[in-house]
Amino acid sequence: MSDSGELRVAAMSPEVVIGELDANLGRIREAIAVAAGRGARLIVLPELATSGYVFEDRAEAERLALTRDDPRWDAVREVIPEGTVVVVGYAETAGERLYNTAAVLTSDERLADYRKSHLWGAEKLVFESGSEAGIVVDAPFGRLGVALCYDNEFPEVPRRLALAGADVLALPVNWPLVPRPEGEHAPELIQAMAAARSSRLPVVIADRCGAERGVDWTDGTAIIDEQGWIVAFRAVTGATAVLSLGAAREKSLPPHNDLFADRRADLY
Amino acid sequence: MSDSGELRVAAMSPEVVIGELDANLGRIREAIAVAAGRGARLIVLPELATSGYVFEDRAEAERLALTRDDPRWDAVREVIPEGTVVVVGYAETAGERLYNTAAVLTSDERLADYRKSHLWGAEKLVFESGSEAGIVVDAPFGRLGVALCYDNEFPEVPRRLALAGADVLALPVNWPLVPRPEGEHAPELIQAMAAARSSRLPVVIADRCGAERGVDWTDGTAIIDEQGWIVAFRAVTGATAVLSLGAAREKSLPPHNDLFADRRADLY
Repeated sequence: MSDSGELRVAAMSPEVVIGELDANLGRIREAIAVAAGRGARLIVLPELATSGYVFEDRAEAERLALTRDDPRWDAVREVIPEGTVVVVGYAETAGERLYNTAAVLTSDERLADYRKSHLWGAEKLVFESGSEAGIVVDAPFGRLGVALCYDNEFPEVPRRLALAGADVLALPVNWPLVPRPEGEHAPELIQAMAAARSSRLPVVIADRCGAERGVDWTDGTAIIDEQGWIVAFRAVTGATAVLSLGAAREKSLPPHNDLFADRRADLY
Repeated sequence: MSDSGELRVAAMSPEVVIGELDANLGRIREAIAVAAGRGARLIVLPELATSGYVFEDRAEAERLALTRDDPRWDAVREVIPEGTVVVVGYAETAGERLYNTAAVLTSDERLADYRKSHLWGAEKLVFESGSEAGIVVDAPFGRLGVALCYDNEFPEVPRRLALAGADVLALPVNWPLVPRPEGEHAPELIQAMAAARSSRLPVVIADRCGAERGVDWTDGTAIIDEQGWIVAFRAVTGATAVLSLGAAREKSLPPHNDLFADRRADLY
């Protein structure tokens, strides 16, 4: 971490083809290499980027799932430069159970695996729910929050992670396209902007683009700064931006206010 | 309340001149009469609409404050049709204390006075903080949530009111204009849209327009539906819309989800 807390981040949206586990892993490696070449120290990829999302049934998800210690993760970690953190979604198999999980990886460590605890739609028929509402991980550049898609639509989640000291939130998502008024952002993006501003918690969102088995994706890949504004958006080749973790850590609003100290936790 | 739970609401932004207590009360009466003439059953006016906002000092606020039982409230209530609810901000004096308060009025009752508990900026030098983080009031049309301005920037507040059964939120504000990227809504409006969508809690926002003692107002008067979309915005003569309280009360997202039941309160 530099003294000013500047962190170059990337949100990547490589092609994900449902069923093509090894090819998806290859495209994930390529996307990491591209983002690393741009100097990103935090690289976020979509939810379930290894498998795809719209499973026919639980059996298909099981076939496309990986264990945490699958040797194929070594090949992913090989392309991560030292000091860089990658957050990528995958279908995790653990004994009899399946989870919708985000792996938090560096070149020499598996920092964490976060299992989504707010399951959307048919995910409830496929995955078990995790036992944490997002996590905060010690990363080389600071404290990294991790949540997955629908998790972040519960305002409790980003707030909780910010209060636990997260400097930035990595948010792999698969946002299905929904109708919205002309000129408006996707509703999930509005929720992420609001959560960012409420807690000065910048967010790096990696979404899908295109379509899968009849589901159109929102293409909501975006980087939101600690003021809640979109600073990079929907680039086909990935969005990159420099975030100020120093600004994110500063919760005061001079001369009289502070976003955290002004909370009336006694009244909630 | 009709069977479908349709509620016509109005957000009004009458001219407020700091120091002109009686003239402001007159303009508030006029605005209520206009909104009532349009059939509104819930009419919201700005924060501190009786006094103005940018006080020179506490003494000026004290001079412009009203008690709850000031006879001038009778003249306000006289213009409210039966079955209609008005929410209007005022500086409240109570013994030695001053509060930034929202009065909740009908033609024949004073339903509540809500004292703002999250104070912004120099308000901390003038007002005491209230002892509730928003309130929910039984109104003729359903359950009415009330909060004031900065209160709503704490995601805990609208969430809490929605979980307490609020069908709609009345939000008197005084939003000072802040810089924002071109094409974006005011940040406080984005936060209100997000909170509305997270809990299916429609919001009726009455903001100031113009300027006062060097502070430019956002002119963020708006009505947000239970999906988080702006359905009426910034009309000089007031914004009106029909909200569906039935839709607001329905938290399910078929076939597998429910905005409230999906909360993992055990993990927050």
